[in-house]
Amino acid sequence: MSAADELARKIADHLRIGEGTGAAWNIEIEEAREGYARIAMVVRADMLNGHRTCHGGMIFSLADTAFAYACNSRNVETVAQNATIAFLAPGREGDRLVAECREQALTGRSGVYAATVTNQKGEKIAVFQGLSRSIGGAVLKGD
Amino acid sequence: MSAADELARKIADHLRIGEGTGAAWNIEIEEAREGYARIAMVVRADMLNGHRTCHGGMIFSLADTAFAYACNSRNVETVAQNATIAFLAPGREGDRLVAECREQALTGRSGVYAATVTNQKGEKIAVFQGLSRSIGGAVLKGD
Amino acid sequence: MSAADELARKIADHLRIGEGTGAAWNIEIEEAREGYARIAMVVRADMLNGHRTCHGGMIFSLADTAFAYACNSRNVETVAQNATIAFLAPGREGDRLVAECREQALTGRSGVYAATVTNQKGEKIAVFQGLSRSIGGAVLKGD
Amino acid sequence: MSAADELARKIADHLRIGEGTGAAWNIEIEEAREGYARIAMVVRADMLNGHRTCHGGMIFSLADTAFAYACNSRNVETVAQNATIAFLAPGREGDRLVAECREQALTGRSGVYAATVTNQKGEKIAVFQGLSRSIGGAVLKGD
Repeated sequence: MSAADELARKIADHLRIGEGTGAAWNIEIEEAREGYARIAMVVRADMLNGHRTCHGGMIFSLADTAFAYACNSRNVETVAQNATIAFLAPGREGDRLVAECREQALTGRSGVYAATVTNQKGEKIAVFQGLSRSIGGAVLKGD
Repeated sequence: MSAADELARKIADHLRIGEGTGAAWNIEIEEAREGYARIAMVVRADMLNGHRTCHGGMIFSLADTAFAYACNSRNVETVAQNATIAFLAPGREGDRLVAECREQALTGRSGVYAATVTNQKGEKIAVFQGLSRSIGGAVLKGD
Repeated sequence: MSAADELARKIADHLRIGEGTGAAWNIEIEEAREGYARIAMVVRADMLNGHRTCHGGMIFSLADTAFAYACNSRNVETVAQNATIAFLAPGREGDRLVAECREQALTGRSGVYAATVTNQKGEKIAVFQGLSRSIGGAVLKGD
Repeated sequence: MSAADELARKIADHLRIGEGTGAAWNIEIEEAREGYARIAMVVRADMLNGHRTCHGGMIFSLADTAFAYACNSRNVETVAQNATIAFLAPGREGDRLVAECREQALTGRSGVYAATVTNQKGEKIAVFQGLSRSIGGAVLKGD
């Protein structure tokens, strides 16, 4: 594993522990590399909408969390400016959803990331595109 | 209040009670009318991201919830197909965020809704656009 | 008319004349004020797609032009960072499409604008959301 | 080349010839396969905005055209429902822009496609995500 990928994994772990949502949603980091993150979440009853499927906000939240890990992976504090999500299929209670996020472009302070959310059967649930902006400062202060 | 607006309010209340997220996020419905919803949520520690501001996923979730109430308000089951959010300013722990969603267009089965998320100082936190599709069936079965 | 609105109109006219697309698409400015623009374009045969309806790119281009006029209206050079469009109904050859763009939020260097595209019968063709970023410098150098 | 890819190429050529914009923008098809298209366009003076860079509408139009070829490639008439674009760098007069579009997901009648727009130096100009919906009927009637 390269030093850049090791740093990316440390940053993802750091964000996961520091964020309130990481524990609240029981986010599991499967892999984190430079410009890349793959994470998982199990859909619970308290994540369901009024149609009793996974709330779109939670599907977005999972993709957005992978986006945050991927766009902060170079240890420069980076925030989301814009994000878009297309919903393709419902998530169900008990489903294990995986969000995989990849960097598409990085130009100056702006980055574009694409993420897919897939269930345990390999069905695509949603596709996401995020635009990030680095605001400077290190995520991991000692590194 | 018109019959259409009364029905819209009943539907929003019905969705709020039926959805797991309504209680989990402590969603408060301030107003619900035909094609319109305004709801509020207080940012808690378990909604913060790794930068210790409100997770973008939770800001989206609030806007998306208002969108769901607005686009289901005519008692036809309707789902989100696509949504976009622009993030303008951070939310902080303890902030009371209000999402206000208005119908922009309704053509056949497709609708477009715009929502803004504002904090208690009146600062715009985010602006959201959602595309819905009605899938048929009543939300409130007896009505 | 306020001085701010007069300046906005001068800027829109200046952009319309300076841009190659203004003449190519025969853009007509109906109204331009601070944070607002309403413009029109007639759909020609060279704007049709393979289904013989107005190319989505041209519908977007009309909305994006109104967005440019609106977000540059304060005489600070401003560019689009991101834009989203929902397509609701086809445009036809000979249709006169009107794009109306309004500022939704302006926070620091970032702005969010919403535009609708409507045909001569008042039917909504598309709904657009744009995120802008000011890059400094005046649009009208002498003002 | 598979039969599916051959058909996709025939459809792209058919759309290119049938659409008014194909000639107006001088669209060149570099490659078209099932769920994929790569096309090019040279930026002309009549495609420039008021800042004298390529109009965002034309960058979108190029990506949207590749999206149309890709999402119609299975010979089922398909239209764009929603599209999002992030702008990363300006296009200049004389630039040869290439849009490459790939299918990300196809579920029932809905598809999601991602496209990038790159200039002749390999710089990413824009990243695009489109949501399509098939409406039935063949694009190439005889096939």
